[in-house]
Amino acid sequence: EHEVRDLETLRRAFDGGTTTWIDVQGFGDRDRIDAIGSTFGLHPLLLEDVVNVPQRPKVESYGDQVLIIVRMIPVDIAERAEPEQLSLVLGPHYVLTFQERHGHLLAPIRRRIRSRKGAPSGMGADYLAYALVDTVVDAYYPALERIGERLEDLETEVIERPTPEVLGRLHHLKNRLVDLRRGIWPQREALNALVRGDFPAITDPVRIYLRDTHDHCVQTSEVAEMYREMVSGLMNTYLSSVANRTNDVMKVLTIVATIFIPLSFLAGVYGMNFEHMPELHSRWAYPTLWALMVGVAGGMLAFFWRKGWIGPGG
Amino acid sequence: EHEVRDLETLRRAFDGGTTTWIDVQGFGDRDRIDAIGSTFGLHPLLLEDVVNVPQRPKVESYGDQVLIIVRMIPVDIAERAEPEQLSLVLGPHYVLTFQERHGHLLAPIRRRIRSRKGAPSGMGADYLAYALVDTVVDAYYPALERIGERLEDLETEVIERPTPEVLGRLHHLKNRLVDLRRGIWPQREALNALVRGDFPAITDPVRIYLRDTHDHCVQTSEVAEMYREMVSGLMNTYLSSVANRTNDVMKVLTIVATIFIPLSFLAGVYGMNFEHMPELHSRWAYPTLWALMVGVAGGMLAFFWRKGWIGPGG
Amino acid sequence: EHEVRDLETLRRAFDGGTTTWIDVQGFGDRDRIDAIGSTFGLHPLLLEDVVNVPQRPKVESYGDQVLIIVRMIPVDIAERAEPEQLSLVLGPHYVLTFQERHGHLLAPIRRRIRSRKGAPSGMGADYLAYALVDTVVDAYYPALERIGERLEDLETEVIERPTPEVLGRLHHLKNRLVDLRRGIWPQREALNALVRGDFPAITDPVRIYLRDTHDHCVQTSEVAEMYREMVSGLMNTYLSSVANRTNDVMKVLTIVATIFIPLSFLAGVYGMNFEHMPELHSRWAYPTLWALMVGVAGGMLAFFWRKGWIGPGG
Amino acid sequence: EHEVRDLETLRRAFDGGTTTWIDVQGFGDRDRIDAIGSTFGLHPLLLEDVVNVPQRPKVESYGDQVLIIVRMIPVDIAERAEPEQLSLVLGPHYVLTFQERHGHLLAPIRRRIRSRKGAPSGMGADYLAYALVDTVVDAYYPALERIGERLEDLETEVIERPTPEVLGRLHHLKNRLVDLRRGIWPQREALNALVRGDFPAITDPVRIYLRDTHDHCVQTSEVAEMYREMVSGLMNTYLSSVANRTNDVMKVLTIVATIFIPLSFLAGVYGMNFEHMPELHSRWAYPTLWALMVGVAGGMLAFFWRKGWIGPGG
Amino acid sequence: EHEVRDLETLRRAFDGGTTTWIDVQGFGDRDRIDAIGSTFGLHPLLLEDVVNVPQRPKVESYGDQVLIIVRMIPVDIAERAEPEQLSLVLGPHYVLTFQERHGHLLAPIRRRIRSRKGAPSGMGADYLAYALVDTVVDAYYPALERIGERLEDLETEVIERPTPEVLGRLHHLKNRLVDLRRGIWPQREALNALVRGDFPAITDPVRIYLRDTHDHCVQTSEVAEMYREMVSGLMNTYLSSVANRTNDVMKVLTIVATIFIPLSFLAGVYGMNFEHMPELHSRWAYPTLWALMVGVAGGMLAFFWRKGWIGPGG
Repeated sequence: EHEVRDLETLRRAFDGGTTTWIDVQGFGDRDRIDAIGSTFGLHPLLLEDVVNVPQRPKVESYGDQVLIIVRMIPVDIAERAEPEQLSLVLGPHYVLTFQERHGHLLAPIRRRIRSRKGAPSGMGADYLAYALVDTVVDAYYPALERIGERLEDLETEVIERPTPEVLGRLHHLKNRLVDLRRGIWPQREALNALVRGDFPAITDPVRIYLRDTHDHCVQTSEVAEMYREMVSGLMNTYLSSVANRTNDVMKVLTIVATIFIPLSFLAGVYGMNFEHMPELHSRWAYPTLWALMVGVAGGMLAFFWRKGWIGPGG
Repeated sequence: EHEVRDLETLRRAFDGGTTTWIDVQGFGDRDRIDAIGSTFGLHPLLLEDVVNVPQRPKVESYGDQVLIIVRMIPVDIAERAEPEQLSLVLGPHYVLTFQERHGHLLAPIRRRIRSRKGAPSGMGADYLAYALVDTVVDAYYPALERIGERLEDLETEVIERPTPEVLGRLHHLKNRLVDLRRGIWPQREALNALVRGDFPAITDPVRIYLRDTHDHCVQTSEVAEMYREMVSGLMNTYLSSVANRTNDVMKVLTIVATIFIPLSFLAGVYGMNFEHMPELHSRWAYPTLWALMVGVAGGMLAFFWRKGWIGPGG
Repeated sequence: EHEVRDLETLRRAFDGGTTTWIDVQGFGDRDRIDAIGSTFGLHPLLLEDVVNVPQRPKVESYGDQVLIIVRMIPVDIAERAEPEQLSLVLGPHYVLTFQERHGHLLAPIRRRIRSRKGAPSGMGADYLAYALVDTVVDAYYPALERIGERLEDLETEVIERPTPEVLGRLHHLKNRLVDLRRGIWPQREALNALVRGDFPAITDPVRIYLRDTHDHCVQTSEVAEMYREMVSGLMNTYLSSVANRTNDVMKVLTIVATIFIPLSFLAGVYGMNFEHMPELHSRWAYPTLWALMVGVAGGMLAFFWRKGWIGPGG
Repeated sequence: EHEVRDLETLRRAFDGGTTTWIDVQGFGDRDRIDAIGSTFGLHPLLLEDVVNVPQRPKVESYGDQVLIIVRMIPVDIAERAEPEQLSLVLGPHYVLTFQERHGHLLAPIRRRIRSRKGAPSGMGADYLAYALVDTVVDAYYPALERIGERLEDLETEVIERPTPEVLGRLHHLKNRLVDLRRGIWPQREALNALVRGDFPAITDPVRIYLRDTHDHCVQTSEVAEMYREMVSGLMNTYLSSVANRTNDVMKVLTIVATIFIPLSFLAGVYGMNFEHMPELHSRWAYPTLWALMVGVAGGMLAFFWRKGWIGPGG
Repeated sequence: EHEVRDLETLRRAFDGGTTTWIDVQGFGDRDRIDAIGSTFGLHPLLLEDVVNVPQRPKVESYGDQVLIIVRMIPVDIAERAEPEQLSLVLGPHYVLTFQERHGHLLAPIRRRIRSRKGAPSGMGADYLAYALVDTVVDAYYPALERIGERLEDLETEVIERPTPEVLGRLHHLKNRLVDLRRGIWPQREALNALVRGDFPAITDPVRIYLRDTHDHCVQTSEVAEMYREMVSGLMNTYLSSVANRTNDVMKVLTIVATIFIPLSFLAGVYGMNFEHMPELHSRWAYPTLWALMVGVAGGMLAFFWRKGWIGPGG
C-alpha cells in the first residue's frame, strides 16, 4: 500500500497484478482525475458521478467495473449536515476510492492492510471493497447513538420545560433525520443489489459478508425511522404540553377573576352615593356584607373544587 | 438432555448421532463460545451475530447450517424495554441455542423433552427448532394482553382525568409499541422465509408447523399495530379533552365576567362624587338601579342560555 | 341434512358418498371434537386453529383438505365487539363447519338445502363451501350500513353540539372500525388465494362464484376504509369545532370586558375623594362624562365591527 | 341502430351478424332483463352484478364474454353524490350496455354511429366498447374541473373568512373526493387489465386506444388525489386561521385589560373613605395621579410594542 | 440543423438519411401539425397526446416509433405554476419534438449540434433523444435549489414572525410541491421503462446514459419529497408557534389581572359608605391596608415565579 502521488506510481501499482487500492482524496485537480479515468478506462458517466457530489448511494455496472457509491456520515450528524460521498470502483484486480475531503474514516482498513502486507488471505478485490463499505456502514452506529442520547435529553425537556427553543431543536433534529433517511434508503437498496448477486464481480464468499453489511444497513435504517417517529411524537407532546399550560394559566385567571369580580361589584354597590340607601345606616350591614362576600367566595371555591380545578390533581 | 458445562461433554453429546440440543446461556466466556464455534464449524459472521446482541430477527443460511435469530420479550414489556435475543443454529443433527442471560422461557420445552426421553417421535432437529421458535412467539400473547389492559385503563383516564402525567404514560407506551414492532416485523419476514421453503434443512411436515407459528406472529403483529393506532387515537383524544376543558374554563370566566363587569360599571357611575348628579337625590333611584342591574344580569344569562353555554348540555 | 348429535350418525352420514355437511356448534365437549378430528383425519394444527378462537381469517391446505376460516360479524357490530369465527374444512365429499356459539346465520343455507333435497345440482362440496362463505361475507353489508347511519348521526352532532360525549362515541366507533378492518383484510387475501386457483379442491365453475364473493369482500373492505377516514375527518372537525367555540366565547368576553373596563376606570376616577378636583364642581361635568363614555363604547363597537367580531358573520 | 323495445326486435338485431349495440335503460322490468340474459347466454352472476348497483368498477371474463363495469359521474359531483353504473357486456359481435336511469351521456356515441351507418370502419365490437368506456372516462374531466374551481373559492374563504360553515363545506367536499377515489381506483385497475391483454376479446389495435383511456383514468385519479391533499391542507389552514384569530382576540383583551385594571385600582385607592389619607388633602395630588396613570399606561403600551403585539405586524 | 418553416423543407430534411431533428414550436396551426403527422405516419392518438397538453409524462411505443412525453419546469416554479410539456417522437432516423410555446431550454443542444455539424459521433437518433430528455431533467436542479432557498427564508420567519401571511406562503409552496411531484413521479417511471430496455429503439450504449438521467430524476423526486415534508413540518411549527404566543399573551393578562383584581376589591371595600365601618376611623388603617395590598401582590408574584411564568425562561 503506497500513498500514490503521481500518475507514474499509479500506473506501476496497477501493473502489479495483485489487488491494488488507489485512494483519491480531493477533486481539486480535475486533470489528474481525468488521467486516472483514462488509465483505468472509466466510463465518462462514471467519472461524472464520482466528481459531482453528492450522488444518491447506488451500485452500477459498467462493463467489468462496478461503481459503488456510499454515504459517509460524521459522528456528530445530529449537529452538522455534512455527509460525504465515498465512490468505489471495483475492477478485476483493483479498487479505486474517491473522496472529496481528506478523511480518516478508512484509516483502520489501511492499518489492517499494512499489518497483513496485502489483501486478506485468499480474497480478491471484492473483499477489499466489502471491507471499505462495511467500515462506512458501521460508522452509522455511533452517530445514531448520539442522536438517541440527544433525543432522550429533549424528551425530558419537552415534558419539564416546553419552551419554543426546545421545539426549534426538535425541528432541527427532524430535518437531520429526514436527510439521513434520504441517504440510508438507497444505500440499503444498493447493498441489496450486491447481495442478490446481480454483479459477477462479487464472489459468493464475499456476498455472505456483504449480506451482513446489508443487515447492518437495514438495522440503522430502522433505528433512524424509529427516531423520526419519536421526534414526531415529541412534537405532538410539545403541542399538548403548551395546550396544557394555557389551560393552567386560564384556570388561575378564572379562579381569581370569578371570585373577586362579583365581590368588587358588591363593594361598588355600597360605594354609591344615593341619598336613599337604607342599608348604609344599619348597624350590622357592614359585617353582614362581609359574611355575604365570604359566602360567595366560598361557594365559588366549592364549585371549582367540584370541577376539579383546585385541590389534588388540579 | 444434559446441562452441558464443559466442552468435552459437548463434543460427546454431538457425537451421539441423534438430535442434540446445546443451550449456551451467557456470553461472558468468549473463549468457550469460540471453541463451540470451531467445534461446529460456525462461520465467523454467524458467531458475531450471535454474540453482538441485539440483531434484527432473521433467518440466514450458512452452508448446511441455518441461523435463526428471534426476539424474546418479557411479559411486562409495557413497563420495561428489555427484549432478549435467542439465536438458534439448526445443523444436520443438532440445534444450538444462545442467550445472553439465564432465562426460563425455554423451560417447558426442556421438560417436554425430558419426559419424552428425546426429540418428538420421528421428527428431527428441525422440529426442535420449530418448538423453540414457537415457544418464543407464543410468549408474545400474554405480553400483548397486558398492554391491552393498560390501554383500557388509560382510555378511562384520558376521558375522566386528562392530566399531563397520563399523556406521559401514553407517550411511554407508544415508544414501547414502536420498539416492539421493530422486532415483530422482521421476525414475521424471517418466519415467512422458513415457511416458503427456501431452506432445505426444514422438512415439509415441520413447515406445516412453522406455518402455524408464522400465523401467530402475523396475528401478534396485527394486534401490536392496532394498539399503536389506539394509542395515537388516545393521544388525539387527550388533546381534544384539554381543548374542551380550556373551553369550559373560558365559559365560566366569560359568564361571570360579562355579567359583573357591566354591573360594576353602573355601581361605579353612582359612586362618583359630582356635585350635580340629579339621580342621586331621587327617592326611587336606588331600587330602580337594582332592577336595572337584575335586568342586565338576566339578559346576559338568557343570551348565554341561547348560546348553549349554560343549562342542559352546557 | 340431519342434525347430527352422536358420532355414529356422523360416521354414517360420512359414508353416504354424496356431499355431506356436518355443522359443529359449541366447543364445550372437547372429546367429541377430537373424535371428529380422528374420524376425518384432521391435522392436529387444523383442529387447534378451529378450537382456539379467534384466529385470523385464512385458507390453508392440509393434504386433500382445505381449512377456511372466516369471521362472522353481528349486524350490530357498531355497538358490540363480538365477531365470531366460522371454520370450514372442505374435504373430498364433505364440508365440516365449526362455530363456538349456536347461531342462525347459516339458517338460509340449511333451508335452501332442505328444500332442494341435497347440494345444488351438479355441484360438489366446494359449492357448498362457497355458499357458506358467501353467506358470511354478505352479512357484512347490513352491519356496514348500520355503521353508515350512525356516522351520519354523529356528523350532525359534531357540527351542532360538539360535546365530549360525541367525541367518546366517535372514538368508540373508530376502534370498532379498526377491529373490523383487522378481520376483513386477511379475509380478502384468503378469498383471493381461493380465486387464484392455488387449491385443487376448488373447481373452476365454483371459482367464478368465489370471484364474486371476493369482489363483495373487497367492496366491504373499501367501505370500511372509507368509514374510517370519515371518522378521522369527523374527529378533526370536532377539534376545529371546539376551537371555534373557544374563539366565540373569547370574543364575547373581550367585547364586554374591553368596553366596560375603561368605562369603569373613568367612573372610578370621579369617585375619588381628592379635595381638589375641579371637574367635580362643574355643572356639565356629569353629562359630559356620560357623553365621553358613550363615545368610548361606540368607538370600541366600531372597532369590533371592523374586525368582523360583531355584526353579520360574527 | 334501433331503439329496441321488444325482445323480438332484439333477437333479430342479434341475428344480423354485424356488430350490434343493445342499450338497456332502467331495471324495473326484471323479466325482460332475464330474457335478455337467456337470449345472450349471460352467466347468472354477471346478470346480478349488472342489476345490483353499485358494483365496484371491474373487468371480468365469462367464457367468450367480457363484463366491464365503469362508473359514470355527473358533472356536478361536487354537490351531488349520485354516480351511476354503466355495465358493458362485450360479446363476439355485440355490446350490451345496462344503465339504471335514462341518461344522455352516451348520446354522442349514438350520434356518431348513426351518421356513419354502423361501427367505425374495420373495427369490431371491442372498438365500440372502447368508445363507450372512453366517453365515460372523459366525462370525469369537466367534473374534476368544477371541483377545482370550488376548491379555489374555498381557499380564498378559508384565509379571509374562516367560519364554521366553510369548514362544513370543506368537510363535504372531502367526503365527495373520498367517494370519487373509491370509484376511480378500481376503474384504473380494470382498464389496466384490459390494456395488459388478459382478454382475447380485445384486439391489439383497440388495446392501443384503451391504453389512451387508461392514461386518462390515471390522470383523473391523480388530479382527484391532489385535490384531496389540497382539501386536507385547507382544513389545517382553517385550524391555524382559527387559532390565529383567537390569538388576535386575546391580544386585544389583554392590552385593554392590563392597561385599565391597574389604573382602576389606583382610582379605587383614592376613592376610599379612610379618615386619615394625607394625599387626599394635597393640592397637587389629583394632577400627580393623572400623570402617574398616564405613565403606567404608556409603560404598558411600550411593553406591548416591544412584544410586537401592537404596531406594524401586530 | 435547419429552422424548418414549410413542409417541403421538412420532407427534404427527412429524406436526408442521417439523424434529423424537427422541432415544432406552437400548436396554433393545426393543419401543419396534421401534415407532419401524415408525413411521418404518426398514430392519431399519438398526435392527440402531443397537442392536448398537459399529458402525464410517459413513454409509449407506436410501432417503430416511441413517444416520450416529459415535463419542463421553469426555474421559478416556486412562484409560477406553468410547467410545459415536451413531446418527443423517436423514429428510426429522426426525432420530432413538440412544444406549445417558444422556449430556450433546448438552445444548448442546438448549439452543440451546430458546432459539431450533426449528431454526436457514432450515435443515432436515440442519443439525440437522450440529450434532449437529459437537458429537461437537469433543469429541475436550479428550480429545486430556488425552492430550497425559499424554504430556508420561511423557516426563519415561522420561528421569528409567525404571521398568517407566512402561513399563506407555506400553503402556496406546498401546493407547488404537490403539483411538482405529480409531474416527477410518472417521469421517473417513464425513464425507468426506457432504462429497463422495453423499447428496442434505444440501443444499449444510450441506455447507460439514460440510466444516469433516470438517476437524476430519482434524486430530484427525493429532494422534492423532502421539501414537502419540510413544508409540512414548518406548518406544524407554525401552529405550535401560534399556540405559544397565545400562551404568552394569556400569561401577561393573568399576571396583571390576578394581581390587581383582588387589590381593587380591597380598595372597593373601603370605598363603601356604610355608617358603621370601624376601620375607617383608625389612624393606621390606610398604611396597614397598603401593607396588606403590597403583601398580596408579592404573594401572587411569588406564586407566578414558582410556576415559572415570570423570571428566567418565562
